[in-house]
Amino acid sequence: MINRVDLSGMYLCPMINLSDTIVALSTPPGIGAIGVIRLSGQEAINLTDKIFAGKNLTKAASHTVQYGTITTATGNAIDEVVVSIFRAPKSYTGENVIEISCHGSPYILQQVIERCIAEGARLATPGEFTQRAFLNGKMDLASAEAVQDLIVSENKASHELALNQLRGGFTKDIQTLRKQLIHFGSMIELELDFGEEDVEFANRDELVELVQKALQYMYKLTDSFQLGNAMKHGVSTVIAGKPNAGKSTLLNALLNEERAIVSDIAGTTRDTIEEVLNIKGVQFRLIDTAGIREAGDVIEKIGVEKTMEKVGTAAVVVYLFDVNEMDGAQVSSELEKFENQESRDKILLVANKVDQIETFNQADYQIEGIPKDHVIGVSALNKENMEALQSALFHLAISNAATQTNTIVSNSRHYEALSKAAESLENVVRGIQNGVSSDFVAMDIRHALAYLGEITGEITTDDLLDRIFREFCIGK
Amino acid sequence: MINRVDLSGMYLCPMINLSDTIVALSTPPGIGAIGVIRLSGQEAINLTDKIFAGKNLTKAASHTVQYGTITTATGNAIDEVVVSIFRAPKSYTGENVIEISCHGSPYILQQVIERCIAEGARLATPGEFTQRAFLNGKMDLASAEAVQDLIVSENKASHELALNQLRGGFTKDIQTLRKQLIHFGSMIELELDFGEEDVEFANRDELVELVQKALQYMYKLTDSFQLGNAMKHGVSTVIAGKPNAGKSTLLNALLNEERAIVSDIAGTTRDTIEEVLNIKGVQFRLIDTAGIREAGDVIEKIGVEKTMEKVGTAAVVVYLFDVNEMDGAQVSSELEKFENQESRDKILLVANKVDQIETFNQADYQIEGIPKDHVIGVSALNKENMEALQSALFHLAISNAATQTNTIVSNSRHYEALSKAAESLENVVRGIQNGVSSDFVAMDIRHALAYLGEITGEITTDDLLDRIFREFCIGK
Repeated sequence: MINRVDLSGMYLCPMINLSDTIVALSTPPGIGAIGVIRLSGQEAINLTDKIFAGKNLTKAASHTVQYGTITTATGNAIDEVVVSIFRAPKSYTGENVIEISCHGSPYILQQVIERCIAEGARLATPGEFTQRAFLNGKMDLASAEAVQDLIVSENKASHELALNQLRGGFTKDIQTLRKQLIHFGSMIELELDFGEEDVEFANRDELVELVQKALQYMYKLTDSFQLGNAMKHGVSTVIAGKPNAGKSTLLNALLNEERAIVSDIAGTTRDTIEEVLNIKGVQFRLIDTAGIREAGDVIEKIGVEKTMEKVGTAAVVVYLFDVNEMDGAQVSSELEKFENQESRDKILLVANKVDQIETFNQADYQIEGIPKDHVIGVSALNKENMEALQSALFHLAISNAATQTNTIVSNSRHYEALSKAAESLENVVRGIQNGVSSDFVAMDIRHALAYLGEITGEITTDDLLDRIFREFCIGK
Repeated sequence: MINRVDLSGMYLCPMINLSDTIVALSTPPGIGAIGVIRLSGQEAINLTDKIFAGKNLTKAASHTVQYGTITTATGNAIDEVVVSIFRAPKSYTGENVIEISCHGSPYILQQVIERCIAEGARLATPGEFTQRAFLNGKMDLASAEAVQDLIVSENKASHELALNQLRGGFTKDIQTLRKQLIHFGSMIELELDFGEEDVEFANRDELVELVQKALQYMYKLTDSFQLGNAMKHGVSTVIAGKPNAGKSTLLNALLNEERAIVSDIAGTTRDTIEEVLNIKGVQFRLIDTAGIREAGDVIEKIGVEKTMEKVGTAAVVVYLFDVNEMDGAQVSSELEKFENQESRDKILLVANKVDQIETFNQADYQIEGIPKDHVIGVSALNKENMEALQSALFHLAISNAATQTNTIVSNSRHYEALSKAAESLENVVRGIQNGVSSDFVAMDIRHALAYLGEITGEITTDDLLDRIFREFCIGK
C-alpha cells in the first residue's frame, strides 16, 4: 500500500497534474441569491480575464474584487458578476485563484463554467482545490481532511473538533515524533552499513525511552477516538422499555429546550435521524423502539427482534421503567431478554415516576453487570433529575480516559494509522529488549514512520489521496 | 391602490426601514464548499469587525478581501473566512455591504448569522437587498424585478430577457414617455388654475400626436407579452393522438439532441416537467397525454377527460396521427372531440409515417379553423421534416407581431400596467377629439402616468413593493 516510503520523511509527490487550471461551482447547487464559481491554477487570472468585460484582471491587485460582466465568445453578456482575485501564493490553494460571484441561477452558473472550460479550464474533481492546497504545502493532510469534516459538521462538538484539526491539531506533535524517530532510525540504518563491525550509533536506552514516551502519547490519542467518533458522528442512543414506562414524556423532557433552536438552515440533514439531543455539544441521536413486551404473535415477535437489533448496534441503551410497576428482580428479568449480555456496560437504567413514591433507592435496582451510578431515578413529567440523566448519558458515551487529553482523534484513518504505528513501536521496544538484529528494529521503525507520515501526508500515495479527496464536495 | 400619486414623478418613499443592518445567507441552503453570508446597512462593516479577528475592517479599503476568523463572543473561532468589503455607495444596495465567505457547513453558517444578529443585525426579508438597491436608486423597479427573473431563468430565452431588463430594458423609453406626458399634464393642470379664463397652455394637436405615438409603442410592447411570457415560462405543449400514432417516437426525435446537453447543475428544477424541448432558445414543455380513444368504460372516460383538460390549458396542441390510418374526414371527426372549438388556432396537425406513402399532400387534411401551414407531414422514425415541425411549433407559439419589436415584455405586472396606461391614453385622445373638459383629460393623463410610473417604480406603494419582493430569494 505504501510504495514510496522515504525514511527522511521527504514529501513524495503523487502523480497529480498541477499545471491545469481547474474550475467548479463552490456553492451548493440550486437556486439562490449568489452562486460562486472558483478557479485555481497558473492561468486562472488570464483565463477569467478573457471572459470578463470590465477592468483588466491581469493587472488587478491580489485580494481585490472587481465588478464586471462575464460574456459569451461573441461578446454577449452572460451575467453581471463580482470577481475576487487571489494571487499565488497567497490563496487557498497556493495557486492563482479566482472566485466569480454570479447571480444564483443554475442556468447562468452552467454557462459561466462552460465558458471557463471553453477557454482552457477543466472541471475540478471532488476536493481538488484542497488537494492542491495540500500538495502546494498550504496545509498538512490531516488539516486538509478536516476541511471536509468542518463542512459536514452539524454540531458544536464535531465543529470544534474539525476546526481544531484544520488549525494544526495533533499534527505538530506527530511531526516532532517522526523527526525524533527518523534520527534514531538513521543511526540504526547507518549501523547496518557497518554490519561487520558491530558498532552502535543509536543509544538503545535512549531509543527505548523515546519510543515509550511516544507510545504513551499515542495511546492517549487512540483512547480519544471513542470520544472523537462520538463527537463527530453523534452517539446512537436507544430508548427501550415497556409501552407505559413514559418513553415519549422522557423524550419530550430531554428535548425540551433543544427543539426550540432547531433552525431552517440546519434542518437539511436531519431526515434520517429521529430525534437529536445535544449534551455539552455532543449529539445523541435518540432512536425510538417498539415497546419490549411478551411476544404474543408473530408480528409482535418481529417488533421485539427489531428492537433487539437496535439495542445491539446502539452505543448507549436507556432502559426506562415505571418505578411503581417493576422491582429490581422484574427489571433484571426484562434485561435477560437482551440476548447480547456483553451490552450491559452500555445500559443506563432509568426509573421513571419517582415523584409517585416516597424515596427512590438505587440499591433496589442493583443488577449484575450494571454499575450503581448507571441507575437513575427521574420524573419525566416533572422534569425532575434530568440533569443527572444527561450527565450520566454523557459519561456513559464518553470514556473517562478520553477526557485526559486535549487532542482528540476523530478520523478513523488516523486512528488506524496510529494503532498500526503503535504496534510497530511496541515491536521496536520488544525487539531491543530481546536483542534482535538491528535489521528488524530498523524495519519496525520504518513502518512506524510510514504510518505516522500517512497521517500528516508526509508520506502519501495517489491511492490514499484519491480515497481521501473523493469524499469531498466538488468545488472545495 | 396607488395612494400617493405625484404628477411630478418624484419618487415617493414607502415606509421601509433603511436604517437597520440586515443579514442573510445568500447562497443556496445545504452543504457546499462555500457559503456566503451577506450584510447590508450603515453598520455592516463595524458590526462585522466586532466578530472578526484579522485586519481592522473599519480601516480596510472598499473592494478588498480580508482573510481572518469569525469568533464567538468569548473569542473562540467559529470559522476561517474571507470577507469582502463594499463601501457605500459603490455596492449592490448602495449601502455598506459585507460578504462573508465561510466553509459551506449549515452549522457554521447559522453560527455566523447568529453572531451577526447578536451584534445588532436583523435577518433580511426576501428580496430585501434588492429592494434596498431600488430604494437607494441603484436600479429601477423593473430592473429589480429582473434580478429574480434572472435567478430563476432556466434557458437562453428567459435568461436574455431578464438580463436585458436588468440592464435597463424598456424602462428608459417608459421614463422618456412619462417626462413628455408630465410636461403636457402640467400644462393642462395649469389651465385648470386659470379655469375662468379659457386659456390653453397645452397644444392639443401636439398632445394627441404625442399620445398616439406613445400608444403605438405601447401596443408593440403589449403585443410582445405573448412572446415574453413564452420565453419566460416556456410553452406548454400537449402531444395528443391515438396510441399507435407514434407519439413516443416523435418525442424522441424532437428531443434527440437536447437530452445530451442536460447537465447535473441545471437538472435540479426539472422534476415537475415531463420533457423540455428547446427551439431557438424558447422552452417547449412537452406534456404527455393518454391516447384519445373511444371511451369504452368509465376509467377510460376519465383518461380522455384528463386529456381534454390538458388540451384546454395548453398553449400549443400537437395532434399526431398515422397518415396510413386516418384521412382528413377521420382527423376532423377526432378533432370534434375537442370540446372547446376555439382551441383550433393552437392546433398543429402532424401526419406521421409519411415515409410509408408515395406523397403527402397537405390539401388532404384541410380542416375548418386550421390554417394550411399548420398541417405538417413527418416521419418520426426517420427524423424526416423535423425542422419544419420545430419551426411551425415556434411560429405557432409566438405571434409574428411580437417579433417586430426588440423590447419584450415578460412580466405580467408590466403587461397589466401598460394595458391600463394605454387605456387611459386612449381616453385622453378620445376626450380631446370630443372636446371634453380639461379636468377629465388631466385625470386620464394622471392615470396613465401612475400606471407607467408603477412599472419603473417612480410611483410605488408599500403594498406593491411587498408583493414584488416577497417572491424573491432570501439573501438577494
